[in-house]
Amino acid sequence: CYRSRCGTPRQGGIVGGSLAVLRCARDLNPAAALEGFSAFSHCWVLYVFHENTNLPREGKTLARRQGQRKGRVPLWQGVCMKVAPPRCPGLRVGVLSCRTPHRPNPIGLSLARVVSVDCAAGEVVLAGLDVVDGTPCLDLKPYLPSYECVPEASVPSWVKASYEEPLMRVEWAPAASAELAALLRGPAAGPDDPGEERAARVDPRPFGSEEELRRALEGTLALDIRSPLQKKLHPNPAAAPGYADGGAEEAAPFFVGDLWFHELHVTYALLPVSPQPDAAPASVRVERVDPRPETPAEADGGLV
Amino acid sequence: CYRSRCGTPRQGGIVGGSLAVLRCARDLNPAAALEGFSAFSHCWVLYVFHENTNLPREGKTLARRQGQRKGRVPLWQGVCMKVAPPRCPGLRVGVLSCRTPHRPNPIGLSLARVVSVDCAAGEVVLAGLDVVDGTPCLDLKPYLPSYECVPEASVPSWVKASYEEPLMRVEWAPAASAELAALLRGPAAGPDDPGEERAARVDPRPFGSEEELRRALEGTLALDIRSPLQKKLHPNPAAAPGYADGGAEEAAPFFVGDLWFHELHVTYALLPVSPQPDAAPASVRVERVDPRPETPAEADGGLV
Repeated sequence: CYRSRCGTPRQGGIVGGSLAVLRCARDLNPAAALEGFSAFSHCWVLYVFHENTNLPREGKTLARRQGQRKGRVPLWQGVCMKVAPPRCPGLRVGVLSCRTPHRPNPIGLSLARVVSVDCAAGEVVLAGLDVVDGTPCLDLKPYLPSYECVPEASVPSWVKASYEEPLMRVEWAPAASAELAALLRGPAAGPDDPGEERAARVDPRPFGSEEELRRALEGTLALDIRSPLQKKLHPNPAAAPGYADGGAEEAAPFFVGDLWFHELHVTYALLPVSPQPDAAPASVRVERVDPRPETPAEADGGLV
Repeated sequence: CYRSRCGTPRQGGIVGGSLAVLRCARDLNPAAALEGFSAFSHCWVLYVFHENTNLPREGKTLARRQGQRKGRVPLWQGVCMKVAPPRCPGLRVGVLSCRTPHRPNPIGLSLARVVSVDCAAGEVVLAGLDVVDGTPCLDLKPYLPSYECVPEASVPSWVKASYEEPLMRVEWAPAASAELAALLRGPAAGPDDPGEERAARVDPRPFGSEEELRRALEGTLALDIRSPLQKKLHPNPAAAPGYADGGAEEAAPFFVGDLWFHELHVTYALLPVSPQPDAAPASVRVERVDPRPETPAEADGGLV
């Protein structure tokens, strides 16, 4: 129903070092449309929230409403007009009063840093984008700081509190660190491994190095990426006095989750930390790193 | 083709004091959707550029392309992918590298100040919005200065130069000033005018006073609202030595134009000014102010 225009940014997060590749649809004439784009440091990305997960809930609401006032209102009236913001489980606000993807018109808006522009290929590398892989992009617009940077703008206290959420401490299990290195550089050569079998299975691009990719992954995990429901079911434990700072490897995880990042399937565990005044709320340890299976969209070049 | 969501802001301009009323479609359940919205000082407005004027030109381009490579590309390929920014007639940039309304997906994005919110009525008064009356609104999103205010963002020199465009000096012809006062307050009572015939024909709301409405109109005119073509046909004259500063009323206009603003049809004239170092490029004088005829959309409450 929306004319898709540019395609396929990769997994992001509110992480400055996270990179996404945006591929313009070929029939857009990207070489002309992107002329001059690299002269801007930042841009807006308008995209479609194409993976909303509240459809079952909306269906129930609809069914109830159809019984109540059949024929009086359009089918989509009043469907989930209030949501609980992720970090404020007690609060309910209107969908227009927050940035939830569950909106009457599912259009997303994110600011990104322009890393590089390949006009001929129609590819733009963007940093800090919080979208999932395969998100259909509707538009790119340059960021105009003279009009769009308003330092005196104010937000309610519940938004301010969400800015101050402390970050988690990120660690790597030795096996996970070795798995990532092997995926990016190829496995270490054994005595009878021929050279051609040591090809890396994962390309770090658009990241410039393995280190940049690691930092972006760590930045994403440090945000505590659990859903509100997962946080409710697995709250951060009050740290027992026995947990010394840095002794997280002795503690048992209170939550294990996973994340698709870049071409990687990452398994992580949350571990309690000792009760220091400024301590992180928990520690997150990368447990495993597996390659992600190729999807048809990727094999096809990611065009929409 | 887009689900219209909120309706009908009024004429604006990049003018802080300009006000627009945004009316939510009634079937949106605005009372719920807007809950908490008034706690934000600024918001993004996503809307449809519904009055694009380049369709004839695009039609010509299309016809030419269809002859050239019939069937090889979608009908909309490469249609006007480069434009000349308004203040840079010599330059041509890609549509993704500027904020032109002539975009493959005609979605607009503007930042506005939240003036007031009436949840029950589903009406939001916004300041500084640069959209025309009747623009269909797709979404409202709160402005998050912690993520969206990036003072270090950089833009190319042609954008920087457009920030520094000097403003015009605005004056009122005495007759125009009296016409505006009569429209807002009703005509001055003659000896045999009954009271009920003195009703004002124009409501200043959402402006709080006649003075606020005047200032917003003056701010809009000071920007030199002529189209690039009008500017080319009627360039600012090199001021003759005889024009004294403040003596604009003696000079003949070099351009006369009009503007629909609020409920008003405004006729203005551009007059040359004397060649001072920091002088305005020209002077704009309000010549006439007429009431705007009511449109069906307004009579109907402005719902989309």
